[in-house]
Amino acid sequence: MRITELFTKTSKTAPADETAKNAQLLIRAGFVYKVMAGVYAYTPLGLRVLENIKQIVREEMNAVNGQELIMTSLQNPEVWKTTTRWSDEVVDVWFKSKLKDESEVGFGWSHEEPIMEMMQHFISSYRDLPTSVYQFQTKLRNELRAKSGIMRGREFVMKDMYSLHASQEDLNAYYNSVIEAYKRVYERLGLGDDTYVTFASGGAFTKFSHEFQTVCDAGEDVLYLHRGRNIAVNEEVLDEAVQELGIDKNELEKVKSAEVGNIFNFGTEKAEQMGVYFTDKDGNRQPIYLASYGIGVTRVMGVIVEKFADDKGIVWPESVAPAKVYLVRIGGEEAVRHADELYDELTKAGVTVLYDDRDERPGTKFADSELMGIPHRVTVSDRLIEAEKYEYTLRASGETTELTRSELLAKLG
Amino acid sequence: MRITELFTKTSKTAPADETAKNAQLLIRAGFVYKVMAGVYAYTPLGLRVLENIKQIVREEMNAVNGQELIMTSLQNPEVWKTTTRWSDEVVDVWFKSKLKDESEVGFGWSHEEPIMEMMQHFISSYRDLPTSVYQFQTKLRNELRAKSGIMRGREFVMKDMYSLHASQEDLNAYYNSVIEAYKRVYERLGLGDDTYVTFASGGAFTKFSHEFQTVCDAGEDVLYLHRGRNIAVNEEVLDEAVQELGIDKNELEKVKSAEVGNIFNFGTEKAEQMGVYFTDKDGNRQPIYLASYGIGVTRVMGVIVEKFADDKGIVWPESVAPAKVYLVRIGGEEAVRHADELYDELTKAGVTVLYDDRDERPGTKFADSELMGIPHRVTVSDRLIEAEKYEYTLRASGETTELTRSELLAKLG
Repeated sequence: MRITELFTKTSKTAPADETAKNAQLLIRAGFVYKVMAGVYAYTPLGLRVLENIKQIVREEMNAVNGQELIMTSLQNPEVWKTTTRWSDEVVDVWFKSKLKDESEVGFGWSHEEPIMEMMQHFISSYRDLPTSVYQFQTKLRNELRAKSGIMRGREFVMKDMYSLHASQEDLNAYYNSVIEAYKRVYERLGLGDDTYVTFASGGAFTKFSHEFQTVCDAGEDVLYLHRGRNIAVNEEVLDEAVQELGIDKNELEKVKSAEVGNIFNFGTEKAEQMGVYFTDKDGNRQPIYLASYGIGVTRVMGVIVEKFADDKGIVWPESVAPAKVYLVRIGGEEAVRHADELYDELTKAGVTVLYDDRDERPGTKFADSELMGIPHRVTVSDRLIEAEKYEYTLRASGETTELTRSELLAKLG
Repeated sequence: MRITELFTKTSKTAPADETAKNAQLLIRAGFVYKVMAGVYAYTPLGLRVLENIKQIVREEMNAVNGQELIMTSLQNPEVWKTTTRWSDEVVDVWFKSKLKDESEVGFGWSHEEPIMEMMQHFISSYRDLPTSVYQFQTKLRNELRAKSGIMRGREFVMKDMYSLHASQEDLNAYYNSVIEAYKRVYERLGLGDDTYVTFASGGAFTKFSHEFQTVCDAGEDVLYLHRGRNIAVNEEVLDEAVQELGIDKNELEKVKSAEVGNIFNFGTEKAEQMGVYFTDKDGNRQPIYLASYGIGVTRVMGVIVEKFADDKGIVWPESVAPAKVYLVRIGGEEAVRHADELYDELTKAGVTVLYDDRDERPGTKFADSELMGIPHRVTVSDRLIEAEKYEYTLRASGETTELTRSELLAKLG
């Protein structure tokens, strides 16, 4: 990708009303564009990051036999009334509108109910269970406040998975396999070391649900960590969890954190409310067990920015970066020819390159490469060509070395 | 993909209120699920078709230097008021709702205005032009009626591209290159022979716009074709076009057709309404030229079903089919072993296979393979194993032959 072909430009300032660091940096670097408070468009660079995150999540959900599908944004009130969740008193984030015949319609903020309604048409016997489906859906939520950038938007992308089972035991086994899948996701996203499976408030069927919380100053949650036992507890269930798990409160460390995923065991509650039954081996009618598993894809992108950014800008982990290499060209015809060749060679080798082919000062190019957070920077200049070297800089550490061509290719290969 | 792992099942009937052939077949085959009138979810099989269509469109848009991004569903009223299009009298398909502070918000039915509003922040000079961006967006339209299945939904996926230019000449050249890109898209989708670049009503800047219309009995439009000159005219501009193009009305053939794409030259109209200017080479402030280019992705999927379906079910062109091969297994242990092996071998070779590994009657499997419209059917049975043959059937023609292993692999390779 040549920078001269991108319509976006970096900027020294972000919108005055934007207080969240993640949004400030993403806007300045040209990854997102703010449409309204809590509503962001993703430019070509931002979309690449989003798709990289989605692909990691997709691979891990497929690995636990999740089937990808796509539900709808428009929601049928009748389906939600069966669980009382159409009510604005019960769910305070609905966007609602009206069809031409004046009947109400909602916009999807979550999808348990429509999933169960649909599954009812396909599941009749224990032989149809278990099954697990997921989607990447644009969720719309009428949030009162939207001050956390892309970490809490009124419009955001979520991976939501739903698993249906014939028994609690079967659900539990699958639920635990998804916990492991989620750990692999956060590991691959570069968040593994600071992300904890966390005890949080449960529902009708379980004392606790599980959240995945990443230690992060910009987070909205408070977490109590027991590093020795690798246990984390959300503040909202601290007293219960301490008692249940036999933890000494004094050994807990209080940290700020951001929820990057949650999993929830509904037991048979939804099925009983909605009348979704299957016939078991003995011919008896039984309610279906349901669990749901969310990952806020856009939120995770925001958390990654918050966690790794430094005073120069964003620092993307290689697994999600929009390009692996930022190629800086300094100088005249000879440098152009040299940089063009390297760009072609790397691209052909499958290395993604953001090629700064602008006629800008070196300082501007270096500053932009740092703001955009591309993991590896390579500089081609007249001086370096003469020395038969490339300047290589690792974004995360800032460490700079001069490498021969073969050393460079080995490093980027 | 093993059929026993899919949660969907085929059905002999469609919902009683579903009158469109495309939706009836897609629901019966388990490709879409009807959530409400004009609102359909896409199951794993349906999503595969959708993604195949998107990928073809994506490749052709990238080939004309389109940059993919993703705008938002939530719309800021202020942006649309600048062109009068916030008004329900001007645009009668808005879904609108309210934020918590009672201010209005809309849901995106089109994206010219937000694209121009965003571009204003990035384009200042003629050096920033031309540029072209596109997205695959879920559009929400409050249609009065929704009786055409996925050909006209209240929620649907559209590829919409927008190109911005410094001059009419530059716009025209790009516009023509997109016409050629669109022809390649429809060719690759299997609709090339019956899809016409069509004269339709223009706007403030041009007498005509261009639609891409596919001859199709289920279509909502009426087209006048001049096959000799390869010209098509939408009924709405028949008299003007006949005069302008010097066509003898008697040589025109009247056909029903479905709009599968449209391109529209806004000239400088939007830029003047919205105040989007650039500085030209001479330092003068000039309004930006805009054109937009749409392809209804879900609509195209519906048109493909309508065009090619026969009395047995759907017939997918190979380019969009959810799998290339439908593998039918008939018989006991030996057949299972044989079919499993073939499934693994084809999958490893990169051939997508829908493997009917159910314990069902052969007739049920054959009927489902026909209903689902998978291009190539391969049958493994005890009798065939003994004869060292495979039964091969081409879905489109129904032609059946017995092939040796090497003949089969050559055909599917």
